[in-house]
Amino acid sequence: MEEKMNEKVIASDLLKNINAPNDIKKLPAEDYGKLAKEIREFLISNISVTGGHLAPNLGVVELTMALHLSLNLPEDKLVWDVGHQAYTHKILTGRKEGFSKLRTYEGLSGFPKMCESDCDAFDTGHSSTSISAALGLAKARDLQKKNYNVVAVIGDGALSGGMAFEALNNAARLKSNMIIILNDNNMSINENVGGMATYLGKIRTSVKYNGFKDGLEKALSNLPKGKAVIDRLRRSKDSIKRLFIPGMLFEDMGLTYIGPIDGHNIDQLLSAISSAKHMNEAVIIHVITKKGKGYRLAEKNPAKYHGIDPFVVETGEVMKKSTVSYTDKFVNTLVSLAEKDEKIVAITAAMPSGTGLIKFAKKYPKRFFDVGIAEEHAVTFAAGLAVGGMKPVVAIYSTFLQRAYDQMIHDVCINSLPVVFAVDRAGIVGSDGETHQGIFDISYMLTIPNMTVMAPKNGWELEEMLKFAIDYNGPVAIRYPRGKVYTDLTEFQAPIEYGKSELLYNERDILLLAYGNMVRVANDVRKNLKEQGYSVSLVNVRFVAPFDENLLKELLPTHKFVVTLEENINSGGFGQKIAGFLCKNNYNDNRYIQISLPDEYIPQGDPDLLRRKYGIDTQTVVQKIISEVGSQT
Amino acid sequence: MEEKMNEKVIASDLLKNINAPNDIKKLPAEDYGKLAKEIREFLISNISVTGGHLAPNLGVVELTMALHLSLNLPEDKLVWDVGHQAYTHKILTGRKEGFSKLRTYEGLSGFPKMCESDCDAFDTGHSSTSISAALGLAKARDLQKKNYNVVAVIGDGALSGGMAFEALNNAARLKSNMIIILNDNNMSINENVGGMATYLGKIRTSVKYNGFKDGLEKALSNLPKGKAVIDRLRRSKDSIKRLFIPGMLFEDMGLTYIGPIDGHNIDQLLSAISSAKHMNEAVIIHVITKKGKGYRLAEKNPAKYHGIDPFVVETGEVMKKSTVSYTDKFVNTLVSLAEKDEKIVAITAAMPSGTGLIKFAKKYPKRFFDVGIAEEHAVTFAAGLAVGGMKPVVAIYSTFLQRAYDQMIHDVCINSLPVVFAVDRAGIVGSDGETHQGIFDISYMLTIPNMTVMAPKNGWELEEMLKFAIDYNGPVAIRYPRGKVYTDLTEFQAPIEYGKSELLYNERDILLLAYGNMVRVANDVRKNLKEQGYSVSLVNVRFVAPFDENLLKELLPTHKFVVTLEENINSGGFGQKIAGFLCKNNYNDNRYIQISLPDEYIPQGDPDLLRRKYGIDTQTVVQKIISEVGSQT
Repeated sequence: MEEKMNEKVIASDLLKNINAPNDIKKLPAEDYGKLAKEIREFLISNISVTGGHLAPNLGVVELTMALHLSLNLPEDKLVWDVGHQAYTHKILTGRKEGFSKLRTYEGLSGFPKMCESDCDAFDTGHSSTSISAALGLAKARDLQKKNYNVVAVIGDGALSGGMAFEALNNAARLKSNMIIILNDNNMSINENVGGMATYLGKIRTSVKYNGFKDGLEKALSNLPKGKAVIDRLRRSKDSIKRLFIPGMLFEDMGLTYIGPIDGHNIDQLLSAISSAKHMNEAVIIHVITKKGKGYRLAEKNPAKYHGIDPFVVETGEVMKKSTVSYTDKFVNTLVSLAEKDEKIVAITAAMPSGTGLIKFAKKYPKRFFDVGIAEEHAVTFAAGLAVGGMKPVVAIYSTFLQRAYDQMIHDVCINSLPVVFAVDRAGIVGSDGETHQGIFDISYMLTIPNMTVMAPKNGWELEEMLKFAIDYNGPVAIRYPRGKVYTDLTEFQAPIEYGKSELLYNERDILLLAYGNMVRVANDVRKNLKEQGYSVSLVNVRFVAPFDENLLKELLPTHKFVVTLEENINSGGFGQKIAGFLCKNNYNDNRYIQISLPDEYIPQGDPDLLRRKYGIDTQTVVQKIISEVGSQT
Repeated sequence: MEEKMNEKVIASDLLKNINAPNDIKKLPAEDYGKLAKEIREFLISNISVTGGHLAPNLGVVELTMALHLSLNLPEDKLVWDVGHQAYTHKILTGRKEGFSKLRTYEGLSGFPKMCESDCDAFDTGHSSTSISAALGLAKARDLQKKNYNVVAVIGDGALSGGMAFEALNNAARLKSNMIIILNDNNMSINENVGGMATYLGKIRTSVKYNGFKDGLEKALSNLPKGKAVIDRLRRSKDSIKRLFIPGMLFEDMGLTYIGPIDGHNIDQLLSAISSAKHMNEAVIIHVITKKGKGYRLAEKNPAKYHGIDPFVVETGEVMKKSTVSYTDKFVNTLVSLAEKDEKIVAITAAMPSGTGLIKFAKKYPKRFFDVGIAEEHAVTFAAGLAVGGMKPVVAIYSTFLQRAYDQMIHDVCINSLPVVFAVDRAGIVGSDGETHQGIFDISYMLTIPNMTVMAPKNGWELEEMLKFAIDYNGPVAIRYPRGKVYTDLTEFQAPIEYGKSELLYNERDILLLAYGNMVRVANDVRKNLKEQGYSVSLVNVRFVAPFDENLLKELLPTHKFVVTLEENINSGGFGQKIAGFLCKNNYNDNRYIQISLPDEYIPQGDPDLLRRKYGIDTQTVVQKIISEVGSQT
């Protein structure tokens, strides 16, 4: 252990002098390689302890250094797409001490945050937003006659998001400077897919950077007026340009293309950024990087080390013991259903590992579609498949499904098409923070006519719900949380019936209505209240929409206190729906207690800690009920 | 009049024999021109009476005919992007009788509807969905080993939507046939914008179709083995291809490009479609059309005749008398505010006319941004502008803002950025029907933390709210309806205060809480109830979020009956929020009456008729209140 510490001290020779923005500029160029090495060691040793995004960060060490050497932060504006690759940027802007509390409650965010540093020009988290935001910053600069640089760094995976294309389409009209760094590692979290990926692949393989083009340019620049020729060639609107310049697709769109550049060669990067800064238009610098660079295990398996739990550096072994998750239950059930039903197809938006569908893909490659980071397309594509007679299952995280809200309303639900939405990572997700919490889905899905919304109490029920949803002839969403499957309450296995809740305990006085993982909490709450002498019933809601009015009507006369429990915001949620029902039907003798998350963004942190902080844990709920019941009876 | 009738009969010589799908195939080719002319006359004469989408339909008459001649409907699948250009398709599939009731309640839809004809392969309305849906249909076909053709018809405007790009990116991987007709008229509703539009423009101008390329191909095909050379050239992966083939941007993405084709030349169209049908991949046929073709006035001013009210054919004069709309009020106010405040910028997603911003654009061209059909980008671009120090106002129709739900949550509201959302066409919009009703906005906006949501009772209040919103340092949405501004209740001009409602009448017993154009209804309801001897108070809610709890608390003791009135669905709306408030705060002596639209899609029809059908008109509300109050007092 002591040896290891010593190693770290030695390894941090240069890094110890990097404590504020622009400190890197004090280093002599010959030390850049050593600094890159130290940064990688810092990243690996820290992330191995805290967990976090490893492979994407290892890939952009030199790129980030080059940006910091070229730019003047915080005056210049640097926008990181998605943002989980901004760790080196954080290290270089005086935040390295924060890495011991990376992605914990009140600790350093895993994403850029304007509130954390004025060197973070824009908050990111979801994919494909950076060019839009950067273009906004560039236009704001121009209108105010300021003259800072604006740079967006976007991965080739994020480029598959339609929003990025919308932004490129507009950036093409810019008559002042903006730099778009295309960080091309041929990966989303998993392999990148689609026509654009193929195209970038062609550039990578057909043009050997440091090869043909450089050779040509060098040869030309040695000639008299050679530089002028290169410039003219580059500026030429003649189609002859097509023979020499890669990236014509971007040029055709009206953007200036520079590249491809070796993203681990700081000299090349500095020279490309320097050229780009002097153009009065939007410039794409196409940078080729290796995801996981410098950590052999991550280079070999970048998907595994994309976002990772604490691990042993030497072996790469993840220390968290593996458990069966809701995601596992979902995909195992789907794989087995798909064996009997050839109409079942599965769709993911660049999340084959995260959604578990990689298992489905291996067994049914033809019936599996990874559409890239393209939730909008994913949902309408599913609608097309449904009209064509298939049974599509779209697995998307709760937070990313927000992107396809319109498509759910407009393309799936108007005609009640049989599309199953597997809404993973619903509720609090933890360390990704504000941008990723799945706390809006119940509210936005309840606004959509014809949408059936379910949530399982445990692993068994997820299986049953999925079977039910596949058989049901209409749109169904099943929302389930991140992490370990709940294995209790297995004694309750009432068959799933459309729109029916499951009455777990029927007593009197206090009625708990809970769905999804809050059934577990409600069960604990009930045990606790029982111990204190209260009489408590518990309903596993199952169907959030349509909800089981009849059961509720039956139970209301014997239960003065109605408690709804949900891991979702208050506004537009299940609780508000029940309140509306009680109000409209004049249940004036009943008293209502609502347990939900507040109508706020929930920050990063351990999920259980956050549940306590935001009042949806067992103890807080028990206290709240007792205080209400006590004051009312 | 009689003369005109006769003219019509004569003009319908051929059309009278077109009464079912594929009837067109019975015509000899020499009659195609005459049929096109008859169809145009039919469109002009019908739309001049009913109103509807004119210019887009006049532009695709020959294209639609060529598609119907080439395809076998309903077996083959034809998906119309947006769908308002499908009138000729409707005429050719036995629906011409329906045009007298076009876009009216229970009449012919202005968009494709699967429920209307099995020749409508997919329902559309919002832009940029067709390629996704068509790709779904194509994959469903392949998996089921069927062999129908799938065709998507998408405009160059709709191509600026990111979703279309997401779909193209995936279509590039298809190993079977799918045809994408790019209907390029260089227009959205207004001029099309952005890099892609510029690129298409270059193809149009640099390649004279019937010119250079045809010449080359003809010259080659006269040579021995010339056709093989053309084929090889077309198939060539060599960059030499770039010198000869336009549309390389699409080829670079992995799609096969055919074009440009004269979209008014049926022979060229038939030949292109026929070639495309035999390729085992996704093929783009780039078709150049003229929006408004055949009606001189529409050719000259396609934006005016895009969607139009009844008009006089000879003069083009619109018969509806012009009135001041909420849109007018919005833009006039914005223009005058922008004079004093240079930080104000305005953004539209391809709706400069519809949102009124064209007036702003004329006065402040540098501060105006039409980003194309790209709502996602529009909102995040606005967020970037706000971070850069500007005051962006984004004007988007309620129904299209659904597309930017995630961007509102993720890019604007997490940091409470000062972006003003001018949510036009909120509530029932009328003849566009299900896909366009703005009835979800209150529900989805109420789910977004930090979002202030306002709605004005009349024109004066819209002005005041806009002034307030511009000054407020955070995200604000103002929702207002389509059509004529309400000019009554002008005696109430309490200044806007954050989160405060305006108490219009303070009596007792019945409390009406209404926002937006429902204040007008509530005012009429109150008058009516007063006449019948009831005592009624009326609150103009103004702030739907945050709502004025204090005023409500003050009023509840003297008002047993609380009535919320809104033109929005029930689920997640204002009414449900009030119900939640009443329940949570144990207002058990109060009785609650909710007036809202049901949780359903609302079909097309006259807005006032729909309001009556769905129970939010004065009379129905009065009845509902009396029946509740009567049974309760």
